[in-house]
Amino acid sequence: MIKINSENILKKKIGFWNGICEKSLGKLCARRQHFVKEVFKNKNSYGYDFLNLPDDKKMLADIKKFATEQKKNNWENIVVLGIGGSALGLITIQDALLGPLHNVFNKPRLFVVDNVDPDYTDTLLSNIDLDKTLFIVISKSGTTTEPMLLYGVVKDRLAGKDHAKHFVFITDPKKGELLKIAKKEGIPVFPVPEKVGGRFSVLSCVGLLPAALAGVDINSLTKGALEMRGLINKTEAENNPALLLAILQYVMDRKKVRPMTVLMPYSNYLYRFSDWYRQLLAESIGKNKKTGPTPISALGTTDQHSQLQLYNEGPENKFIIFMRVIKHKADPINASKMPKDMAFLNSKKMGFVLDASYKGTAESLAHNKRPNITVEIPEINPKNLGALFMLFEFQMALLGLLYKVDAFNQPGVEYSKILTKQILSQTK
Amino acid sequence: MIKINSENILKKKIGFWNGICEKSLGKLCARRQHFVKEVFKNKNSYGYDFLNLPDDKKMLADIKKFATEQKKNNWENIVVLGIGGSALGLITIQDALLGPLHNVFNKPRLFVVDNVDPDYTDTLLSNIDLDKTLFIVISKSGTTTEPMLLYGVVKDRLAGKDHAKHFVFITDPKKGELLKIAKKEGIPVFPVPEKVGGRFSVLSCVGLLPAALAGVDINSLTKGALEMRGLINKTEAENNPALLLAILQYVMDRKKVRPMTVLMPYSNYLYRFSDWYRQLLAESIGKNKKTGPTPISALGTTDQHSQLQLYNEGPENKFIIFMRVIKHKADPINASKMPKDMAFLNSKKMGFVLDASYKGTAESLAHNKRPNITVEIPEINPKNLGALFMLFEFQMALLGLLYKVDAFNQPGVEYSKILTKQILSQTK
Repeated sequence: MIKINSENILKKKIGFWNGICEKSLGKLCARRQHFVKEVFKNKNSYGYDFLNLPDDKKMLADIKKFATEQKKNNWENIVVLGIGGSALGLITIQDALLGPLHNVFNKPRLFVVDNVDPDYTDTLLSNIDLDKTLFIVISKSGTTTEPMLLYGVVKDRLAGKDHAKHFVFITDPKKGELLKIAKKEGIPVFPVPEKVGGRFSVLSCVGLLPAALAGVDINSLTKGALEMRGLINKTEAENNPALLLAILQYVMDRKKVRPMTVLMPYSNYLYRFSDWYRQLLAESIGKNKKTGPTPISALGTTDQHSQLQLYNEGPENKFIIFMRVIKHKADPINASKMPKDMAFLNSKKMGFVLDASYKGTAESLAHNKRPNITVEIPEINPKNLGALFMLFEFQMALLGLLYKVDAFNQPGVEYSKILTKQILSQTK
Repeated sequence: MIKINSENILKKKIGFWNGICEKSLGKLCARRQHFVKEVFKNKNSYGYDFLNLPDDKKMLADIKKFATEQKKNNWENIVVLGIGGSALGLITIQDALLGPLHNVFNKPRLFVVDNVDPDYTDTLLSNIDLDKTLFIVISKSGTTTEPMLLYGVVKDRLAGKDHAKHFVFITDPKKGELLKIAKKEGIPVFPVPEKVGGRFSVLSCVGLLPAALAGVDINSLTKGALEMRGLINKTEAENNPALLLAILQYVMDRKKVRPMTVLMPYSNYLYRFSDWYRQLLAESIGKNKKTGPTPISALGTTDQHSQLQLYNEGPENKFIIFMRVIKHKADPINASKMPKDMAFLNSKKMGFVLDASYKGTAESLAHNKRPNITVEIPEINPKNLGALFMLFEFQMALLGLLYKVDAFNQPGVEYSKILTKQILSQTK
């Protein structure tokens, strides 16, 4: 079971000024317990509807049926054209469950193209066999600049081939430009959920359809999310992981004046999870010229040799969330006899060294009175990943209530879009 | 030529409170001009010696000779075992010059293993043909836990093969555990520079040897660094890009109370550059419990759909540095006729859309009075990348003088290492 270890945030460990008293933490959680109920009560409202995604049996059945049919095409490449919430959840699934080396050694390869980089796009399209490639275009409105431009470029490259066979659209099932094109050209369409924003959509067709096509067990992903939802629903006060995470985040930012939150998994497979979380926190709570802790990505042990110096000896403005994986699938052992100075590595398993590094880092931060907590994950698998998605999405809904902001809009990106479209419309 | 555009940081553009007056900026730079001279004067001292790396003709010749000899082995994989400064510079070179898709489509593949992740390591070693793989171990002292553990694991996997053929060490040429092993087993050794810290070592054997083996033009990298060094040496006041960058960084952090610096390239190929920069800034200036802006990585346009909401409407605590690439190697054009709402994309080149997105984003931030500057790069090539390395390394040397900290040590990571070794020594 996923657990939160908050020992290194308590006053008895890191002192009066930086820490929280255990009793107060319990009280703070108890006092905000009604927010958990409020989120569940709102579950059919816009935004909060992410809670219902894992109940959608028809969606799962439709996705699996399509994935099974597509097997006959033996796709070598699944290429997703989407950005932001239409990309980051899927990238997280890919890295966590297929692994960061998947595309180098396995097929079908899964490419998530979430930028309009000319060289990257050209390199990709020139090196893959287009006859053996399925393109999935994701845009709710069909008016997102990046995926629509990518769609245009890919369509040109597919000239002369059967478009309907090489494209799938994930879009608004009732209206919009992509829907019109799909109807005209006979391209299969899957729905973007109506009342769920992009950054909360990973457990809809947006994340699950491409994942299923790449061979991920989406049933277990969904099941893990459902179990976490049940746990959050029935657990009181500081034993409720979503409530505890939300309260700690809020207190660290608002009461302890630590405006930055570092998410630092000790696993290459969870590094991109922190990119997904970064969007979730930045877009949901960064509002009103005032609110919004800044999320920062880090990776253990890698960033012990990069960002840790600043975390340990820089200004006291950070709250650190570690992610620790208890059990690994493979775990190479070091049978070689090391030189004398390094003899402590003899006969050690790599997972053990990784975990010792995490412990040393967390303790060194606590020693310097730097607050940190740890999300403990028994192992990386579809069920636990689904649970993590639900946990942090629920945390965000709670943070919206704590910060008194709408966690489900993003008005601050509109003006940039208007200016960009103006520039593009004026010039040839 | 690489240029700094600082228009969106001026008072006339973003107002009195957030901006800097053009005249004051000139004066500030002029007043600190002597720091540039001081850095050059110190060039033979510890740390500052990074300035001399591109002059080392013998090093370049040795690397090229070795790379040429190795061609006969037709390596399919170059695997680097190193972490922190022994990895991030090389990863930057790989992504910028070979591209983020290199390992999927090209050989020799270049893997930089900068973590002790059990599953990642096992997946890599199980999927590559060890007979066709060269391993490069990088550690100055030969006592860095991660590369030494990886070395031990790899050595076991190579049992029965000719070690001396499959290994190269980059280490202290005078002492240390790796040197002893190399002498005993006849493994080739290349030097880690004596007076240059890891994070400033990209233009030594640490970055250049693996890059050369992977086919990168290291002559041009070095030449670009030399040209930038010349430019910094001869240019006065605010026309000096390194001095201007340092002054802006310092003023934004210390005078305008913006403790976070976002580096946001508009190019997939420069995304990892911001990881390299992150270590450089975090370890060099994050000191004394007080100083150190926090570096944050972002990518355009991708993060317009993730972090931009927070940058535009969150707390006013960020200074944003864009990196803009003017010319692209390939530039796919969108010949497809778009739906009516998206007709502004018709006949547009992708690079043009990317650049319009950058402009729209920079302007939207300026409109919200959020200070941002842009590093303009004519195109991504070895010469310009070498120049960028020198530019930011020099900026860091100047920041050390401005903040009055030793930019070349990292005392804050030692305690974590001690604790980790204690844990590993106590248990079996």
